[in-house]
Amino acid sequence: MGRRSGFAFARVFKVAVFFFSPRGAMEQSQQAKKSNKKNKKPTNQVNLKFFISFQQNSAPEDVVKKTAEALENVTVGEAGDDFSREFYGNLPMHQSQSKEGPTYTEICDLFDKKYLEKEVWIRGRLHRSRSKGKLCFIIIRGRQYLLQVVLSVGDKVSTNMLKFAAAITKESIIDVFGTIKSTPSLVEGCCPDNIEMHLQKVFVVSASAPQLPLQIEDAMRPEDDEALSHVNQDTRLDNRYIDLRTPVNQSIYRVEHGIVHFFMEYLDNKGFTNIHTPKMISAASEGGANVFKVSYFNGSAFLAQSPQLYKQMAIAADFDRVYTVGAVFRAEDSNTHRHLTEFVGLDLEVAFKNHYHEVVDLIADMFVHMFKGLQRQYASDIETICKQYKAEPFKFLEPRQKDFTFGSLTSRLTILSIFSLRLEFSEGIKMLREAGWEVGDYEDLSTPAEKFLGKLVKEKYDTDFYILDKFPLAIRPFYTMPDPHNKNYSNSYDFFMRGEEIMSGAQRIHEPEFLTERAKAHNIDISTIKSYIDSFRYGCPPHAGGGIGLERVAMLFLGLDNIRKTSMFPRDPKRLTP
Amino acid sequence: MGRRSGFAFARVFKVAVFFFSPRGAMEQSQQAKKSNKKNKKPTNQVNLKFFISFQQNSAPEDVVKKTAEALENVTVGEAGDDFSREFYGNLPMHQSQSKEGPTYTEICDLFDKKYLEKEVWIRGRLHRSRSKGKLCFIIIRGRQYLLQVVLSVGDKVSTNMLKFAAAITKESIIDVFGTIKSTPSLVEGCCPDNIEMHLQKVFVVSASAPQLPLQIEDAMRPEDDEALSHVNQDTRLDNRYIDLRTPVNQSIYRVEHGIVHFFMEYLDNKGFTNIHTPKMISAASEGGANVFKVSYFNGSAFLAQSPQLYKQMAIAADFDRVYTVGAVFRAEDSNTHRHLTEFVGLDLEVAFKNHYHEVVDLIADMFVHMFKGLQRQYASDIETICKQYKAEPFKFLEPRQKDFTFGSLTSRLTILSIFSLRLEFSEGIKMLREAGWEVGDYEDLSTPAEKFLGKLVKEKYDTDFYILDKFPLAIRPFYTMPDPHNKNYSNSYDFFMRGEEIMSGAQRIHEPEFLTERAKAHNIDISTIKSYIDSFRYGCPPHAGGGIGLERVAMLFLGLDNIRKTSMFPRDPKRLTP
Repeated sequence: MGRRSGFAFARVFKVAVFFFSPRGAMEQSQQAKKSNKKNKKPTNQVNLKFFISFQQNSAPEDVVKKTAEALENVTVGEAGDDFSREFYGNLPMHQSQSKEGPTYTEICDLFDKKYLEKEVWIRGRLHRSRSKGKLCFIIIRGRQYLLQVVLSVGDKVSTNMLKFAAAITKESIIDVFGTIKSTPSLVEGCCPDNIEMHLQKVFVVSASAPQLPLQIEDAMRPEDDEALSHVNQDTRLDNRYIDLRTPVNQSIYRVEHGIVHFFMEYLDNKGFTNIHTPKMISAASEGGANVFKVSYFNGSAFLAQSPQLYKQMAIAADFDRVYTVGAVFRAEDSNTHRHLTEFVGLDLEVAFKNHYHEVVDLIADMFVHMFKGLQRQYASDIETICKQYKAEPFKFLEPRQKDFTFGSLTSRLTILSIFSLRLEFSEGIKMLREAGWEVGDYEDLSTPAEKFLGKLVKEKYDTDFYILDKFPLAIRPFYTMPDPHNKNYSNSYDFFMRGEEIMSGAQRIHEPEFLTERAKAHNIDISTIKSYIDSFRYGCPPHAGGGIGLERVAMLFLGLDNIRKTSMFPRDPKRLTP
Repeated sequence: MGRRSGFAFARVFKVAVFFFSPRGAMEQSQQAKKSNKKNKKPTNQVNLKFFISFQQNSAPEDVVKKTAEALENVTVGEAGDDFSREFYGNLPMHQSQSKEGPTYTEICDLFDKKYLEKEVWIRGRLHRSRSKGKLCFIIIRGRQYLLQVVLSVGDKVSTNMLKFAAAITKESIIDVFGTIKSTPSLVEGCCPDNIEMHLQKVFVVSASAPQLPLQIEDAMRPEDDEALSHVNQDTRLDNRYIDLRTPVNQSIYRVEHGIVHFFMEYLDNKGFTNIHTPKMISAASEGGANVFKVSYFNGSAFLAQSPQLYKQMAIAADFDRVYTVGAVFRAEDSNTHRHLTEFVGLDLEVAFKNHYHEVVDLIADMFVHMFKGLQRQYASDIETICKQYKAEPFKFLEPRQKDFTFGSLTSRLTILSIFSLRLEFSEGIKMLREAGWEVGDYEDLSTPAEKFLGKLVKEKYDTDFYILDKFPLAIRPFYTMPDPHNKNYSNSYDFFMRGEEIMSGAQRIHEPEFLTERAKAHNIDISTIKSYIDSFRYGCPPHAGGGIGLERVAMLFLGLDNIRKTSMFPRDPKRLTP
């Protein structure tokens, strides 16, 4: 509490914040008018000195003038008529004035019973408040946790202090100090809901403007609650720094953290090297469509649509197993629920020995590791998200135990081989046709066809996660290795979650002459991919890999309906801000 | 060994690769001419069939013609005169023909004595070979490991097989099979150097072109070895997929993997959220200088110079502690040893409670965690790098034990507070002046001044890692929080390694009106940073952070002289390829 005592006069706090914040000053002056105008000019000129001396060099004259006017209306009680005057107020702008200060407790720690009847400092946001006679209830929010704080006019809380607290704007950052008490009945809407704080001190650290562009409580409301208002997506995205404060958004980006964490953890344990590939490249790969152009000094560059060529060079350079996590750019004018112009790619590339299925199995196993990790470590986040955005739990196959009976003996065996479903493309086509869908043998699947196939797979195999293998050669990129046994197919695969593609990959052609031939067959200007082809001229192991879209994995794992919910600051053809 | 038996005829291997590789065919035909022309057309037409049938649909006519000619000269012994004929040859292009195949051993595993006298398959690169009468010595390389393989004409190796092996081009990927034996004396230049393989089978998986753009052995040579040739930097970078194969480059990028790993590990354990920020932004921040412009559909965008604004929005949105790892772009026309136009930023931002030094201490502790982790887990990589590029080991202060004597008692205490050196900018200026350097009080330090100060600090405090705190306000960006006690300084800091800046950071202004005022003082068009300023209007905790340049940390930790050595595919004003 050292910093508090260093600035033990509420009037100083208040004055100081005025010097730095003309807006604060005006709000405060309105507040002051409401509160009976019992105010006097502060007298502690010594402590004011450094704020003023600083201000003289940086504030325009009108700020100084407004500040002076505001001083006339300051809401600070006198020692005689406000015994709480040291225990509330606006703190000056936090400039790290002193290293001394309270030790704070996080709301989430209060689940621990050791805090009962203890006094603690908490810094959090004023979620909402409500006053009723001599009582004021404040809900303070810290990430997804909400705690009720009670002010009751009496020994420790003056009427002025209650008025001050009741007037603090929603979403302001406040410091509160008080005793943690158990509540006689559960506090609705709070978490923890069986305790509350009996407040003794309250200070505003950073005040919010009174008019919010969106109400957090509207943004938190379940989508199926049709009686009350919601916030539309553009308003959310335009004011992302507020929208992201909802417990659900806090949880979504923790889950996304988890996805990257489990991806890297699994691969680190398998001896992968994390590499970084350039985003600015000299030539547009794959024919130059859908590429953003960059002015590069006197010339131009392009933004990489994928790190693939570089991952492959790393393989040609003996790194054996590499992954990279980074921005990927697509200049596609697609305004759908699942396309972004910039997203996070989780890419990997692996030199294999005998068959590219070694790589497919490794990636599938990585996903199972990820799904299990998420369901284990992020269970409460997933639950929080589900409360607002209803979704079926994500299902996947994993190594399971099976009972075998030999005579009178029953033996339990773990069947390691049946863990992820891998279907051939032609089997997928067959399933679609049997269900009445018309599809060509070597045609790419439309998005509705993919979704429908996902449904059929779920019905038959009870999994939201499966692999479609052996895509037709004609619909895959030029560098895809053809199937050695059927010229119409290729050694390529897509991974699906809830019927939507989240990863595309293949065994790549590592033989330069054959690669050249295939590029020509795709009408690609060989000169633009010369260094790519050259990288295979000096020996390259057979290799396969794939690129995973982070935001899609998050969206589909959580069963969300729009990729803008899983991109913190999404980019699409119509959105470049904030 | 199933795949081997499936393709048990060397002649099939050879023929197959010709169909796919006219270049291979020509080289082979030269090789064939050297080897006495004992060759016959292959007769096993059945196994050839599918290669041919595949080829008919994709090869241009002249390839077929050349292939036919090459067949005339195939170097395959007859059963009668080459008892080894099944045990060597060129494999067909690896198309994942079969899941069956050998189990391979990695060279690094052979340090284990259990492999002595055992037969193993190894896939690796032919590093170099040398034949002498009836003997051929091949060095096979797997990342940083090198194993000697011996062919000796006799029971298992025919003269033809020896000729075939001796003619394999350097850098080809080969499969070798043989018995691991201990060597009577150490094999110079190998690692492991006390064992070798007595070869029984050798197959080429992916042949290298005979003319290499650079010699790996030249690229591996210590820089102070002036008698022999070296490879200049541009040749290395132009042929990065070969250059990266050197043991030193393998080690550098493993160390870089470690840097990112320890950065994330430390922060994950401290409750940080890993976020992803957009690289394409709508307006050039910080005045618009040094920003790359992107064509964005019908408008334009810019490439982010730093994720800072987004990290701060995440703080305003209650994420509390965030980090992000990703590409950062600088359109500076700086052609120095330490500037890139695109690099990897390790950025973090932290809401603190009482003082921004909470954040400085956390970051310093993170670096100590990283340095210790690297020196512990990457000791052999650091040693490998040091052999080629001499450097003093990196020194840093860490929690240490100190003896105290009280009368006759000596007590050992761990002093936790002295772990990273933090000097104030003004102290740095004083040290420079005392050493005769002329510097202004509020001037930015030039690169030579920084380096010199690093030397002075090293002499005085014996550390290559230190922090310069409290930079003059005038030389820092507009969003830097001024020092509350001296208007000429600010709550900002740089971190240094070996006298070069590797991180810049500060407490940020979180009060929108004051931020606006400071932006105006820096002549920034407020309309371009509106959403940035707005993000602080609805309450924001005090926060500080910084941005670390990955490649600089790697370069300076390892004591390398150029940042292009620690960027896998560097970008500078003159280089956009490969």
